Amino acid sequence: MIRVTIFNEFVHERTEERVREVYPDGIHMTLKRALECEDIEVKTVTLLDDQCGLTDDVLKETDVIIWWGHMAHGQVPNEVAQRVRDHVQMGMGAIFLHSAHESKPFKLLMGTPCSLTWREDGDFERVWTVNPAHPIAQGVGRFIYLPHEETYGEPFTVPEPLETVFIGGYEGGEVFRSGLTYRRGNGKIFYFQPGHETNPTFKIPEIQKVIKNAVYWANPIYRTTSLGCPHVEKP
Amino acid sequence: MIRVTIFNEFVHERTEERVREVYPDGIHMTLKRALECEDIEVKTVTLLDDQCGLTDDVLKETDVIIWWGHMAHGQVPNEVAQRVRDHVQMGMGAIFLHSAHESKPFKLLMGTPCSLTWREDGDFERVWTVNPAHPIAQGVGRFIYLPHEETYGEPFTVPEPLETVFIGGYEGGEVFRSGLTYRRGNGKIFYFQPGHETNPTFKIPEIQKVIKNAVYWANPIYRTTSLGCPHVEKP
Amino acid sequence: MIRVTIFNEFVHERTEERVREVYPDGIHMTLKRALECEDIEVKTVTLLDDQCGLTDDVLKETDVIIWWGHMAHGQVPNEVAQRVRDHVQMGMGAIFLHSAHESKPFKLLMGTPCSLTWREDGDFERVWTVNPAHPIAQGVGRFIYLPHEETYGEPFTVPEPLETVFIGGYEGGEVFRSGLTYRRGNGKIFYFQPGHETNPTFKIPEIQKVIKNAVYWANPIYRTTSLGCPHVEKP
Amino acid sequence: MIRVTIFNEFVHERTEERVREVYPDGIHMTLKRALECEDIEVKTVTLLDDQCGLTDDVLKETDVIIWWGHMAHGQVPNEVAQRVRDHVQMGMGAIFLHSAHESKPFKLLMGTPCSLTWREDGDFERVWTVNPAHPIAQGVGRFIYLPHEETYGEPFTVPEPLETVFIGGYEGGEVFRSGLTYRRGNGKIFYFQPGHETNPTFKIPEIQKVIKNAVYWANPIYRTTSLGCPHVEKP
Repeated sequence: MIRVTIFNEFVHERTEERVREVYPDGIHMTLKRALECEDIEVKTVTLLDDQCGLTDDVLKETDVIIWWGHMAHGQVPNEVAQRVRDHVQMGMGAIFLHSAHESKPFKLLMGTPCSLTWREDGDFERVWTVNPAHPIAQGVGRFIYLPHEETYGEPFTVPEPLETVFIGGYEGGEVFRSGLTYRRGNGKIFYFQPGHETNPTFKIPEIQKVIKNAVYWANPIYRTTSLGCPHVEKP
Repeated sequence: MIRVTIFNEFVHERTEERVREVYPDGIHMTLKRALECEDIEVKTVTLLDDQCGLTDDVLKETDVIIWWGHMAHGQVPNEVAQRVRDHVQMGMGAIFLHSAHESKPFKLLMGTPCSLTWREDGDFERVWTVNPAHPIAQGVGRFIYLPHEETYGEPFTVPEPLETVFIGGYEGGEVFRSGLTYRRGNGKIFYFQPGHETNPTFKIPEIQKVIKNAVYWANPIYRTTSLGCPHVEKP
Repeated sequence: MIRVTIFNEFVHERTEERVREVYPDGIHMTLKRALECEDIEVKTVTLLDDQCGLTDDVLKETDVIIWWGHMAHGQVPNEVAQRVRDHVQMGMGAIFLHSAHESKPFKLLMGTPCSLTWREDGDFERVWTVNPAHPIAQGVGRFIYLPHEETYGEPFTVPEPLETVFIGGYEGGEVFRSGLTYRRGNGKIFYFQPGHETNPTFKIPEIQKVIKNAVYWANPIYRTTSLGCPHVEKP
Repeated sequence: MIRVTIFNEFVHERTEERVREVYPDGIHMTLKRALECEDIEVKTVTLLDDQCGLTDDVLKETDVIIWWGHMAHGQVPNEVAQRVRDHVQMGMGAIFLHSAHESKPFKLLMGTPCSLTWREDGDFERVWTVNPAHPIAQGVGRFIYLPHEETYGEPFTVPEPLETVFIGGYEGGEVFRSGLTYRRGNGKIFYFQPGHETNPTFKIPEIQKVIKNAVYWANPIYRTTSLGCPHVEKP
């Protein structure tokens, strides 16, 4: 059983009518319903929880964390962000969705600005498969069509990835590296661009498929409990 | 002085009126005029030359080779392609333009199919800068606009590059990794997608700038004269 | 069931007494016994077989090929080497052992000289784990101790790998990147340095464990049947 | 003129006699003397300076920062470490020496634990050239011999580098990736392992040569003044 914890800041859905219409009980609940199956159990936490619900105990029992945040990145305490980073480095998998490119844990794990260009014009997007043999791309065709998405554009200032899995192309012309993989310490990381709060992107089956694939891919096979530099004896 | 050798198969320009109108004396001559300056001297060779003009002596005195080919890839003798590969591995720089993705030397150097999807509908293309700090991207803005280009699409089956410098987005929706860097042995390689024979792409100043930047970038600082596995003494 | 095909040139074992003593029925048979289990079935082929036993039909029914060769690389026909390369590009996994760094298929897939420095002084080697979370390193400790191995040294002229899994250190002082991963087209590739013919390296349980791990890792999840560039319609 | 700023924590040299004997006026002054030339001017700062001497103004006028720290990493204020990170992301080059693998700015830029194993037995080390064509390796032979160094061992928990330039091998058997390159945002980063405070490593001409090469390599050609995500108009 893969134990997934979904963190959703859960602010837009509580404060904006047009977002609540799309995700009445929050993005996290839509994702939870999409992922739960006989292999995967899902816990959800939000900014409303003490310490974002991400205590050391919760993270120790999380195989893969999924992160959605946007307007309230700054409300995630630094200790929580650092704790998430540490657990990824020790082996926990992590999937960062859409505007989580600017979340504290993602930026801590990348070491780069993670900046991009953006506009919000209701563009359609095609998420093109660049690496069809990658486990995360299984079950996806040439591209995933998204009727409306926030437009993200390059330069996306992240490190060169292990592998580029998807690249998005938008109605208005921009392109964006939409699916990127990383390893940081023992943990595997997938960044996936789709998922603006005003669009029902997370209800699209192929998007759910990609995220589920990523959960299997990021599920750790090796995990440590410390990050220090051990003194060793001569071999 | 950087010694550049341009190989152009030079078939379209001799056999198709609409291409001759764009490049009356051949793509190679347009590139030569674009590159020649006080730092760079340019030699041109074509399929009409014995051994494609790419003898061992010529390659030894070439710092950076530029390759354009399309319909006549098969007419490049295997020995010539292997010789080019060997000189790149020993340190010669190489720039492969547009349909040279399917040229023999490029495929030998990549070890992959180097396949892609394509259509020819007169799309405009924007070549977006992904890595603005890369030497090859200097002097280029957010994107280069090309009024008409052949459309190339992913998956582009090349190895993960050292760095992705450009990604193209086409009018019809496709995206394509348009500028990629590699090292193979001692040699540096740049693949650059623009440059279909029926469009005057190589006359666009920003495209010329990118190719010139790539010449400086690929110019070798270290070169060997053999590729074997030396037996060594215990250090 | 993962279908593994082991190619061993099988020359040393037939012509050198000291090698026959180590591997009486050939390196391939030792590897076969090490790998066979309820998940893995193994076929073996050698230079003695017509076309090295590597017909198109055999390769189509091979999930992962394992290659050992040394003194007879040149006897592998070019068509066979190219066929192996093509099947890897279409998705077949490949594991290249020890002196297979100079085999035709490996060089075709890397696009580099794949050269190294070497001496044969009976050094012991430690194969150090660099990436303990990688699936190929599971079940291995800090290092694998090999009482005697042929010494390989850098520069190992291969492309930058996806990930460096192991680095070897030898009694005499040399270091060598001993475990490297690649993707070429749809196929996953693992190069693993241990396994000189005069040493019983392939009988060491941890070495067998690494190769078995690599079989699981390289087992394809996606495979194509062609390598061409399809013309596509506008999306 | 390349403007180099050397940060040395400058604690060992002031508090330990055996270190003062090696570097009487501090590691930074030895490095300064090694680097200064008609192309390079050097400023030095230490923990004794207010804000480590690394104000925004100083960093704006620094092309490449060199960092040496060990026992006093924790005394570098977080704001200073973040400021250094930000300037690297905007384009400043950075060279991290030896125990700076655990410095705050390096860890912020890598996003990994940057841990390793270590012992201090007076081992000799050979720093082997893995990538002889890399600009940082020019002028170095097969290896650099260091009579005594602190022993560092894998796993070195850093991200996969752009390129591996050097790998160290120690008398006692350990191996370590000793020279690694990264890009973070617009900035280029080189990590170089040699340089324990009790050994006169920085007085060895080949070590000085590598660091000087790295200064030229990391010298920025492109720099920004902000790290945010700009809203853009449709192209």
